[in-house]
Amino acid sequence: MSKKLKQKIYTVIFEAETPSGRNFDIVLLVLILLSVLNVSLESMPSLNAAYYSWFRVAEWVFTIIFTVEYLLRIYSTPRPLRYIFSFFGIVDLLSILPSYLSLLITGTQFLLIIRILRLLRAARIFKLTRFINEGQVLTKALKASVAKILVFLGAVITVIVIVGSLMYIIEGPESGFTSIPISIYWAIVTLTTVGYGDIAPVTPLGQILASMVMIMGYGIIAVPTGIVSVELARSEKNAANTRMCPNCHQEGHLPEAYFCFNCGYRITPEQQL
Amino acid sequence: MSKKLKQKIYTVIFEAETPSGRNFDIVLLVLILLSVLNVSLESMPSLNAAYYSWFRVAEWVFTIIFTVEYLLRIYSTPRPLRYIFSFFGIVDLLSILPSYLSLLITGTQFLLIIRILRLLRAARIFKLTRFINEGQVLTKALKASVAKILVFLGAVITVIVIVGSLMYIIEGPESGFTSIPISIYWAIVTLTTVGYGDIAPVTPLGQILASMVMIMGYGIIAVPTGIVSVELARSEKNAANTRMCPNCHQEGHLPEAYFCFNCGYRITPEQQL
Amino acid sequence: MSKKLKQKIYTVIFEAETPSGRNFDIVLLVLILLSVLNVSLESMPSLNAAYYSWFRVAEWVFTIIFTVEYLLRIYSTPRPLRYIFSFFGIVDLLSILPSYLSLLITGTQFLLIIRILRLLRAARIFKLTRFINEGQVLTKALKASVAKILVFLGAVITVIVIVGSLMYIIEGPESGFTSIPISIYWAIVTLTTVGYGDIAPVTPLGQILASMVMIMGYGIIAVPTGIVSVELARSEKNAANTRMCPNCHQEGHLPEAYFCFNCGYRITPEQQL
Amino acid sequence: MSKKLKQKIYTVIFEAETPSGRNFDIVLLVLILLSVLNVSLESMPSLNAAYYSWFRVAEWVFTIIFTVEYLLRIYSTPRPLRYIFSFFGIVDLLSILPSYLSLLITGTQFLLIIRILRLLRAARIFKLTRFINEGQVLTKALKASVAKILVFLGAVITVIVIVGSLMYIIEGPESGFTSIPISIYWAIVTLTTVGYGDIAPVTPLGQILASMVMIMGYGIIAVPTGIVSVELARSEKNAANTRMCPNCHQEGHLPEAYFCFNCGYRITPEQQL
Repeated sequence: MSKKLKQKIYTVIFEAETPSGRNFDIVLLVLILLSVLNVSLESMPSLNAAYYSWFRVAEWVFTIIFTVEYLLRIYSTPRPLRYIFSFFGIVDLLSILPSYLSLLITGTQFLLIIRILRLLRAARIFKLTRFINEGQVLTKALKASVAKILVFLGAVITVIVIVGSLMYIIEGPESGFTSIPISIYWAIVTLTTVGYGDIAPVTPLGQILASMVMIMGYGIIAVPTGIVSVELARSEKNAANTRMCPNCHQEGHLPEAYFCFNCGYRITPEQQL
Repeated sequence: MSKKLKQKIYTVIFEAETPSGRNFDIVLLVLILLSVLNVSLESMPSLNAAYYSWFRVAEWVFTIIFTVEYLLRIYSTPRPLRYIFSFFGIVDLLSILPSYLSLLITGTQFLLIIRILRLLRAARIFKLTRFINEGQVLTKALKASVAKILVFLGAVITVIVIVGSLMYIIEGPESGFTSIPISIYWAIVTLTTVGYGDIAPVTPLGQILASMVMIMGYGIIAVPTGIVSVELARSEKNAANTRMCPNCHQEGHLPEAYFCFNCGYRITPEQQL
Repeated sequence: MSKKLKQKIYTVIFEAETPSGRNFDIVLLVLILLSVLNVSLESMPSLNAAYYSWFRVAEWVFTIIFTVEYLLRIYSTPRPLRYIFSFFGIVDLLSILPSYLSLLITGTQFLLIIRILRLLRAARIFKLTRFINEGQVLTKALKASVAKILVFLGAVITVIVIVGSLMYIIEGPESGFTSIPISIYWAIVTLTTVGYGDIAPVTPLGQILASMVMIMGYGIIAVPTGIVSVELARSEKNAANTRMCPNCHQEGHLPEAYFCFNCGYRITPEQQL
Repeated sequence: MSKKLKQKIYTVIFEAETPSGRNFDIVLLVLILLSVLNVSLESMPSLNAAYYSWFRVAEWVFTIIFTVEYLLRIYSTPRPLRYIFSFFGIVDLLSILPSYLSLLITGTQFLLIIRILRLLRAARIFKLTRFINEGQVLTKALKASVAKILVFLGAVITVIVIVGSLMYIIEGPESGFTSIPISIYWAIVTLTTVGYGDIAPVTPLGQILASMVMIMGYGIIAVPTGIVSVELARSEKNAANTRMCPNCHQEGHLPEAYFCFNCGYRITPEQQL
């Protein structure tokens, strides 16, 4: 009987395929977003002064709900330890811990960011089947691009460091380029086309170098885009390419293939030619 | 007789295929753009002070023309209620209402934005056949990308919230990061490479984190571009690829093809040439 | 004899295939760039004060050289009037006229920009065969994208006008949003991720709307990129697709085609199947 | 015996395939990054004041290590002169020279940037086999795009110069557009969407022109992205597409294929599995 209840709880909390499981996920998502909103608004001095007690009450309501949910997760899962030390288990714990700690410690500034990590729990929504495929295609394309993007980033960072150092020597402290790290920061702000304008070249030579960096940045933004486009196109194509060999169950055969490239079995019968 | 007039009006106002229908659309488009320009320029203090009465007169001219057009639309359409409550019917009404309301209510500030919505009426121009296909290809590609872009946006927003909170703790109110919502606003301004510079990190740690966010933002802008490129390529290919030979069922004929490239069968009948 | 000289001059000046023609083009390109540099540097107050007479002398040297070249072009071309009223003929005339006009008129400020138009003459370098193909592929892809990009721009401009008007009402004159045109200018600066920061939202509601615009701008930058990528890929593919029908000389047959899609002629002989 | 040692040193220093060679490369990479970090931090006035002697000591430690490495490279390579005058040989020398020169010359400001060039030595890491392929694909795609990107850049620079000159005349010195070169610098900052905001248009006409430039910049960023995407797709496809079946000469086999998908012939010999 208790075992049945345990399994029922498990289905609701951990699975998203049943209607009650999906409803639970949606309610949880709303609670997480509200809780993050609560933390955010609490940080605004004017609102905090006016509604301090309301924020405190709301925080404790969220904490108690999440604590109950956390305990139910430990209770219902067949392997509690594995859950506790999993990524989501740690995130779940971290999202309730700060409120309890704030009873003991006074400087809550540092605990705030931990409470924001609750947002990571929302990543569970990707379990909803509609998104899981899209997420996988994206992740696969990004993973396949990693080596190329690392090579690209290596080259970009080398350029950034050298340009930053050059600007430090050309512009000097009086234009705001007070050290090489600050100049490298400026080079990143410029090459990524963010362009705050808190530091900007003033000398003609500095402006010429900056212009070259900008045009270069304009051009090289094309490279990661090209990489990801190509990988996405490929991973989409492969996802669609689900022709399976009936002999060895190898997938990914080209539409024009007659034989399995893995075992040599004829996958297009001769009468179909 | 009156019925014939009604039909004539319907053809001119609602359809874009006949010469008079197309001319009507173009005149209407020009009127809409002039009217939006009128509203815009009226909001400039210096111009408004000098030409207040001119703006008022022009506004009433546009309002009367659009009112007549609105009444003719209701009169000529076979199903008036359906038009009135359609998207364009509501936009049409909203674009004339503010002027009449301003006779009754004094605070016209709020009515201004409603008058700007007239611009939405210009969307009717997409009925012009030259653009309808292009619009459909774009819309189709964007719709097919929606799920992937939502997954991507979810990940981006999570990063933005966490980075914003971190910056609030690292930089603090004295650098302009006065609350978590403001810091999240900064994170959005930075990650999207807009970079106003109204808020910018000052501490070394904050600048290092900002640099990482910028380089990340530089990389992840590649993802939506890749998604849209792949979907556009696919939707273009599918749009082009569906012409089939009635003799051998070969697909993928060019629009300008007269003969099947596979069996030589004439696929464009001679009387259509 | 004089006719031979005329033809020789024509070959050198108008054609780029012969060694002397290419050398002439390169010398001309250098002269154009130096002349534009001269105009640019002349506009710098400090340099102008120090080297005024040098700039004047250089300007007249360039003007005389370009005048001689212009007259030789008119002399050597078989159809002088056609050259004079062609795009390059007008540009050539405009690039020498300002110097002569400045002898008559005093306000040279306005003539300056005309002298900069000399740069357009450098477009002749694209006659160099190495670039002509690349330029054609790019131009073709951009032309094919025009209709799609117009639809996209129409939608973007509608969004910009409505967002700008909303911001004018939300933020108001005290934040710098002094009129609808200024607010539309801000919307363009933000949506295109330029982000000067001369005008930036101050109210929470304005910052929320701005954040949504930025994220949207981040997403929609993907659309023109996708459009151009797809068109470029297609125009490259078609450029490579030069299979010609021996019967009707139609180009662009698919590699797998057996019959010409234009005349139905068998282009792949049966024994090759 | 000495020859064996020489060969051993050569393998460790110049090659990355052996375990000791790879370890050497990794240690060297860490040393290079630490050394660059040392130069960067030394430039920060506050840190330099506090830890001046530490920075000096660290600098000499790195210099001595790199000097020993440089001498070992000359000693162990079979063709010392070729190494010394190769790109990496010169970079290696430049990265140790400044420290020795600083004993003789007082103004070390200028030597700083040379020391930063040490970072270029890190490019050796691309010898690691994992990255060499990715780097080649990227380089190949970029090389194939060069002609197209040059044509594109030529057009962009022409637009930038003309727009810059126009803005100089429209806005004039009182808005910060003090000369044509400064206005061209503004045009680059705007077209590349960097947007510092140190110079921004103030007059309505200037803002309209700036808006047009921004929307144009938004559109043309699509062009290099499209170019690189298409070239990357092609160079990837070609890289993947060259495996041929020795029996039926069918191309396009996947790298993991054991059998030809067209004729079923074993294309990966069994002993290689």
